[in-house]
Amino acid sequence: MIVKRIVDLAEFRTDAMGKSTVARGEFVYAGLNAFEPGQEHKAHAHEGQDKLYLVLEGSGEVTVGDQTELLTAGDLALAPAGILHSVRNPGPARLVVLAILAPPPRAK
Amino acid sequence: MIVKRIVDLAEFRTDAMGKSTVARGEFVYAGLNAFEPGQEHKAHAHEGQDKLYLVLEGSGEVTVGDQTELLTAGDLALAPAGILHSVRNPGPARLVVLAILAPPPRAK
Repeated sequence: MIVKRIVDLAEFRTDAMGKSTVARGEFVYAGLNAFEPGQEHKAHAHEGQDKLYLVLEGSGEVTVGDQTELLTAGDLALAPAGILHSVRNPGPARLVVLAILAPPPRAK
Repeated sequence: MIVKRIVDLAEFRTDAMGKSTVARGEFVYAGLNAFEPGQEHKAHAHEGQDKLYLVLEGSGEVTVGDQTELLTAGDLALAPAGILHSVRNPGPARLVVLAILAPPPRAK
């Protein structure tokens, strides 16, 4: 399957980070995380699942383990299975991050 | 691990598509495919492995199964396990594609 302009699939919410699905395979899942200024995805870890973040728009303060960096479009982070990671949008722009999970999360 | 400006890791070759690694986990692999104008990655399939393509720079004619589209920066394709897929750079610019494989290919 082919999806053009994936950033247009971002779904923002006023109360929390928004999530939307871009593509789902048997072994990999691609979704978008959408952050209004000030929103964050608090530190969490996934056992048995790697996550890749690629910033598409805006800038985000990304922490993986003990490393924290301000990422902008074209920057990537790998949160290996079991490692704490978090994302925060310091603003002033909206932040859209491509989040790739392998293996995929359970379908809802 | 965090990698800034991943597109800068692209490695172009005169004789064929160039490949480079961005990040490798236990469950996912991220690399770059770099195409000079006219270069292509011919139709192939991976059993038991999904591949995601995300165009970072330039434009590429991407085929997945019976679907062919001209993709530019921000467009994504999912080639599910076992499905034939190919990429060609029609030019005139260089093409850089983020290729994500799950599970990862064997380390060389």
